[in-house]
Amino acid sequence: MNIQTLSILAASLGFLVSGNIAQAQEPIQPISTVKEINLAEVELGKKLYFDPRLSKSGFISCNSCHNLSMGGTDNLKTSIGHNWQQGPINSPTVLNSSLNIAQFWDGRAKDLKAQASGPIANPGEMASTHTLAIDVLESIPAYVNEFKEVFGKDKIDIDQVTQAIAEFEKTLVTPNSRFDQWLLGDKDAITDNELAGYNLFKSSGCIACHNGEAVGGNSFQKMGLVEPYEATSAAEGLAAVTGKDADRFKFKVPTLRNVEMTYPYFHDGEAETMTEAVDIMGRLQLGRKFSDDENAQIVAFLRTLTGDQPTFQLPILPPSTETTPKPQPFD
Amino acid sequence: MNIQTLSILAASLGFLVSGNIAQAQEPIQPISTVKEINLAEVELGKKLYFDPRLSKSGFISCNSCHNLSMGGTDNLKTSIGHNWQQGPINSPTVLNSSLNIAQFWDGRAKDLKAQASGPIANPGEMASTHTLAIDVLESIPAYVNEFKEVFGKDKIDIDQVTQAIAEFEKTLVTPNSRFDQWLLGDKDAITDNELAGYNLFKSSGCIACHNGEAVGGNSFQKMGLVEPYEATSAAEGLAAVTGKDADRFKFKVPTLRNVEMTYPYFHDGEAETMTEAVDIMGRLQLGRKFSDDENAQIVAFLRTLTGDQPTFQLPILPPSTETTPKPQPFD
Repeated sequence: MNIQTLSILAASLGFLVSGNIAQAQEPIQPISTVKEINLAEVELGKKLYFDPRLSKSGFISCNSCHNLSMGGTDNLKTSIGHNWQQGPINSPTVLNSSLNIAQFWDGRAKDLKAQASGPIANPGEMASTHTLAIDVLESIPAYVNEFKEVFGKDKIDIDQVTQAIAEFEKTLVTPNSRFDQWLLGDKDAITDNELAGYNLFKSSGCIACHNGEAVGGNSFQKMGLVEPYEATSAAEGLAAVTGKDADRFKFKVPTLRNVEMTYPYFHDGEAETMTEAVDIMGRLQLGRKFSDDENAQIVAFLRTLTGDQPTFQLPILPPSTETTPKPQPFD
Repeated sequence: MNIQTLSILAASLGFLVSGNIAQAQEPIQPISTVKEINLAEVELGKKLYFDPRLSKSGFISCNSCHNLSMGGTDNLKTSIGHNWQQGPINSPTVLNSSLNIAQFWDGRAKDLKAQASGPIANPGEMASTHTLAIDVLESIPAYVNEFKEVFGKDKIDIDQVTQAIAEFEKTLVTPNSRFDQWLLGDKDAITDNELAGYNLFKSSGCIACHNGEAVGGNSFQKMGLVEPYEATSAAEGLAAVTGKDADRFKFKVPTLRNVEMTYPYFHDGEAETMTEAVDIMGRLQLGRKFSDDENAQIVAFLRTLTGDQPTFQLPILPPSTETTPKPQPFD
């Protein structure tokens, strides 16, 4: 090792140390890339995520409402389900969802695996049944072989299906946002205005709920804490899970990662823009009316949270066979 | 150049020559890869192809009905349009569609560019208007910049949109099928049974319409030539374009490339399996009832027509802005 190499190493170590200090001091942590993952499950799960044959119609896949071209959402106020049914709630982003304390706005699924089984069999969403979905997969030799290779069992079951989808979803993290670069020590990664927005985000109290690696996703909070929220949606939040009146309108705090891509906002999708969402949150949760300049500064900070979007090849799905149950879009 | 290199070169030349002879003798030609293409238009067109904001609902993209995970089709009898309307006709595959004599089953669009403008503004499909689609794109700075870079004009227009989509679609060819490998001289690329199927396909007359690079797509033919076709669909075919009674039930002969992925079959999607399609075609078009063994042989040949599927990264779409017209899924 020559002197030049040593000094580069020393500089790198210094960078890392200062980066680590920056992290330790901030209530938001950079997104780490996935460390342990079963790649075979991921590849299978990716196919299933894009396969509309898991729906009754043969038209709706996980990607329909959690579109990975669009921040892992459908960018609709509430989603479109089987037979164009209007969903009751805004589709939360699948991006970084592995960091959530629980899944769904009301937290009724404890993890991604439990979540994945819901929409397949929900009559208002994919409108299939677990039995039918398994019958479809069992009729397709390429799936039968891949499931057997991945899970080593003779029969496909819904547990394997949701396990594979969840494993794929764990890869959908978005590291390397400008804000994370800043957290890691690159002080030029964000502008002074964006930094001022972050400081206001902290000093005004947004950070109390939107913190941690996902800038949210790690607690349930009441929507309308200082001022009541005038909901048009019937969603009751955590109360629907716990049965406790005190949990009415408590929703999982959404992640703010990639928030510029995940519009519209709130569980009911009522806030169309970041400006509107910041304004409402300030008033209802913090009792604070942000000035236009303050609002714009916070929005500027929020835009620095867009990370590298997951990149992968569009999967090619194995064709159905003569024994595959037919899709029933119009029955 | 040493002797070993020379002999390898000679062997390669011999291979190419015999390959060319094989091609010249056969009524089906191998798919050539795309030679001239505007890569910047392709990249822009790929985004547009996957962008559901070209539809009124914000939910339906080109890829919804011409799904590149599923042979460039939706694998439904007839498609699902805006507000879950049932389409009047089976979605033909977009794969190798640049080789078609014209677009749509009735040939009403002369090329891919003309085709692409149809579904966007069709009230039963994407249900938008060209004006609205342009307004959406013009409101998104990343699109504005990319269109300007690609086309060098100050304003986006529908002509640029359809040009870019068509250019992307030109890349969607599927070379390197086992049958093409055989055509190019690799005699082990298909089995004896598959070859027997091909010979029967030729000797029984299927080849009269299904020939050329796309194994179809290059002529219009009457559905029900020997025996009348008992149609449940109201589609009239070419007559709807020419107004001539003689053109009733004349449809564009579909490509058989990747046919194992593009079920169900015919303009009305009435044939669910290749077996059924071969049987009906034999009786109605050729006056020939194939035995079960003959049918199976032809189907075995048809499966050799599956080529390399287009592989590319799922595009990431630029987010809407505060001025972007909102999707109207439920109005």
